[in-house]
Amino acid sequence: MNGADALIETLIDNDVEACFANPGTSEMQFVSALDRQPKMRSVLGLFEGVVTGAADGYGRMAGKPACTLLHLGPGYGNGLANLHNARRAYTPIVNVVGDHATYHRQYDAPLNSDIPAIVAPNSLWVKSADSPDVVGDLAAEAVAASYGAPGGPVTLILPADSAWLETSRRGPRINPPGKAAVSDGAVADIAKALRGAKKPVLLLGSGACNDAAFAAAGRLAGAGIRVLTDTFITRTPRGAGRFAPDRMMYFGEAAIADLEGVDLMVFVETVTPAAFFAYPNRPSVLVPDGCETATLADRSHDGADALSRLADALEAPAQAKVLDLKLPDPATGVLTPAGVGAAIARHMPDHTIVSDDSVTSGQPILNVTRTARPHDWLGLTGGAIGQGIPVAVGAAVACPDRKVLSLNGDGSALYTVQGLWTIAREGLDVTTIVFANNSYRILGIELGRTGAGAPGPASSKLLSLGEPAVNWVSLAQGFGLPAVRCETAEAFDAAFARAMAEPGPHFIEAVIA
Amino acid sequence: MNGADALIETLIDNDVEACFANPGTSEMQFVSALDRQPKMRSVLGLFEGVVTGAADGYGRMAGKPACTLLHLGPGYGNGLANLHNARRAYTPIVNVVGDHATYHRQYDAPLNSDIPAIVAPNSLWVKSADSPDVVGDLAAEAVAASYGAPGGPVTLILPADSAWLETSRRGPRINPPGKAAVSDGAVADIAKALRGAKKPVLLLGSGACNDAAFAAAGRLAGAGIRVLTDTFITRTPRGAGRFAPDRMMYFGEAAIADLEGVDLMVFVETVTPAAFFAYPNRPSVLVPDGCETATLADRSHDGADALSRLADALEAPAQAKVLDLKLPDPATGVLTPAGVGAAIARHMPDHTIVSDDSVTSGQPILNVTRTARPHDWLGLTGGAIGQGIPVAVGAAVACPDRKVLSLNGDGSALYTVQGLWTIAREGLDVTTIVFANNSYRILGIELGRTGAGAPGPASSKLLSLGEPAVNWVSLAQGFGLPAVRCETAEAFDAAFARAMAEPGPHFIEAVIA
Repeated sequence: MNGADALIETLIDNDVEACFANPGTSEMQFVSALDRQPKMRSVLGLFEGVVTGAADGYGRMAGKPACTLLHLGPGYGNGLANLHNARRAYTPIVNVVGDHATYHRQYDAPLNSDIPAIVAPNSLWVKSADSPDVVGDLAAEAVAASYGAPGGPVTLILPADSAWLETSRRGPRINPPGKAAVSDGAVADIAKALRGAKKPVLLLGSGACNDAAFAAAGRLAGAGIRVLTDTFITRTPRGAGRFAPDRMMYFGEAAIADLEGVDLMVFVETVTPAAFFAYPNRPSVLVPDGCETATLADRSHDGADALSRLADALEAPAQAKVLDLKLPDPATGVLTPAGVGAAIARHMPDHTIVSDDSVTSGQPILNVTRTARPHDWLGLTGGAIGQGIPVAVGAAVACPDRKVLSLNGDGSALYTVQGLWTIAREGLDVTTIVFANNSYRILGIELGRTGAGAPGPASSKLLSLGEPAVNWVSLAQGFGLPAVRCETAEAFDAAFARAMAEPGPHFIEAVIA
Repeated sequence: MNGADALIETLIDNDVEACFANPGTSEMQFVSALDRQPKMRSVLGLFEGVVTGAADGYGRMAGKPACTLLHLGPGYGNGLANLHNARRAYTPIVNVVGDHATYHRQYDAPLNSDIPAIVAPNSLWVKSADSPDVVGDLAAEAVAASYGAPGGPVTLILPADSAWLETSRRGPRINPPGKAAVSDGAVADIAKALRGAKKPVLLLGSGACNDAAFAAAGRLAGAGIRVLTDTFITRTPRGAGRFAPDRMMYFGEAAIADLEGVDLMVFVETVTPAAFFAYPNRPSVLVPDGCETATLADRSHDGADALSRLADALEAPAQAKVLDLKLPDPATGVLTPAGVGAAIARHMPDHTIVSDDSVTSGQPILNVTRTARPHDWLGLTGGAIGQGIPVAVGAAVACPDRKVLSLNGDGSALYTVQGLWTIAREGLDVTTIVFANNSYRILGIELGRTGAGAPGPASSKLLSLGEPAVNWVSLAQGFGLPAVRCETAEAFDAAFARAMAEPGPHFIEAVIA
């Protein structure tokens, strides 16, 4: 057994069973060791942004980490943006970053860089396994650290000689750390504050967006307390049979208007909400004037349990308010995001997973799928575009029996378009939709909001994806996917219905106005 | 004038005239300010790896920095790998990384991250302009820092409020710092050592690979001293009428064999050569046993001047040994990298710029183009693949009157394939060639060298780009380029000849065995 074997065996012993990879020379021992342990499923991404986003999607759905295999500092850098999103999603991920042999680092060879510095901002835990005998123990430590609470990406640096040298030591099996229970006193204090408030709201973070938390939050809604979630949530259970909290609005002034008159905000696995960006003369903190704030559970706490006990303390109804199934009529004529949403709502089967990187097209789809069949919605937690295709890859690997939808703005999809190839290679049951408006439309809106005025010639060109327009069908086919272009609501509805009826990869370019 | 105007005006005053960009909301003021200063040419990349690689290609050819415009930590992260390459190329680049407004940082909004930490490993200089009144001065400081000596990427963080608030202060025009002259004593010492050596070699780093340095090095070659360069060089003047140093071999044991019997290595703007990677039982330091080493000029010194004075001290011939023009016969039959090289050598015009990310296909092309028409060769300095297309973009923007070739392994081209769109949009005179062997071929070689053995089922899949094979013509056309696939040497020669005869973008898939 060499160090690479010790690493993989320890990961397998700790239920880390998927490896998303784009290896290089320094990772060849790890790659070779994969041949000796078939329980580890390895999936190649043609670019590290695909690799890390896939690990995020896998972790969101599996509730346990995948590992990534990345090539030194630049390989990690290529995957950094989706690890930023994963950090904001609290997704457990074990990054394995290959490095030069320990004795070779001193020569500053071309691929040498300060890996610990590059990885630190998006890693809960960073260590380098500088001898084969510590690889296993550090791998176990890394898995434990990735669970948190709350969880997130961690990084184990693996020098090449630690991988190729022999060892007899594999790491232990660890017990994933759980979230701590909120104290009885804290629950009682919040219950008292809620009783005394005129217009209270609960604000749920990603950790408190799951079936158990929503069941409890839905009881509290039944007791007259409005429930919202943060704008971007790791994984939201949605659709018929589920409680549907509102969502904090994206633009700060809209959020403040929506919260008018609220006198108490109670945070559950989240913190004081802030605007996504600052703008001249607009609010940064999204709490109305005079509103009190209190925390029921921070992110290390079990928010679902605390909500359930809070519902009991407030003598809330035993059952949550839940939605009935209600499907929209098909849309007609010009294709719009809402029309796409209508087709999705009509045809997506139970337990569909939606990976959302659709930017300006997203809200209309959220609206129209609210009462669709039950599904899970994976949001753009960190705001770094290019997540929609990779997260769908990982979700499909984690859940091979569920349909996966990948919703993407065209600008977003272009960031990690190489992920289409992994969908094709693995034959994943992913339907990828790209909203082709040939622009970074959000930036046209934002240009005005930042007070920068109307776009002139230079800025118009920087905000446009036209000249030339990308031919999405050609791109998707080039990566090996069957692909169609839809320009009307009727055509989209028919294409989407076909995609839902047939297992395997599908690609639809939605030409929207 | 707001802070964004102050930044752009200061950059223009310092001859920074190209901005490679993928902006987001926090950069909208900068984008808007571009409308007010038409001297700054802005070029959109669909992914930040394209943006930063283009800035590298521009800097290598223009000899002065372009600026990039990047969106917070994740945007920089997406461009990190090509900035790693640029750092290793000593290319001056001024990165402008937008950040949240200064007062908004404390709220840790979703896109917030530790930007200074992420950028530090690949930045010679990092500062944040936390008020509009310091933007201009810091911009001038950034430009100066990017020149070195030696140069490299620097990073100016621009908070949104520093961009949108008014200021009356723009930065000064700076004098780019130059390289220091080597002392007379140092030149005399090296001359003496060379006279006493039996088999000396000179090793030139990137800073000493230019016409002036090669003219002097070629004189020393005429005096019987062998001249080599580092394996990967920022910009090598090559072809007829030029002195042609040898190149340090890539694999360590080959390099050591090539240097057998050498008793003195003299470094000129470089350091002790190290193997690209370490391997079990193979050398890391590429200096033969018993060989002495000495430094004529370090990277902050003017190597060309030192070489010239050294040639005088050694009474070397007044003229360098240079190559005569010699073009190969056309290749026939099965297409190979050497056959591609023959077509390139035959048809590329004077002053072609070659951006090389061709990995295993590269050496045969270097061999056959050695006596071609004069050209410049831009190498993969940092070893992070995905440079070939972006660097070609930047070189073409810097040198609109020169033909640019982009040579790419298929695995490399897929990293930053979005750059094809920028070539199409800008109508750049770039001919992109992808060597389609449907594999990470270098890794098949490396797997054996690291002692990992023959590939099994998992590793074979991780090293293959087949299943499905990428349809390169479809991809390139999807991004708006005219594209052809060539499967024979004759077809490639004809397609390449056409590309050289017609200005504007061309794409050729070279199907190689």
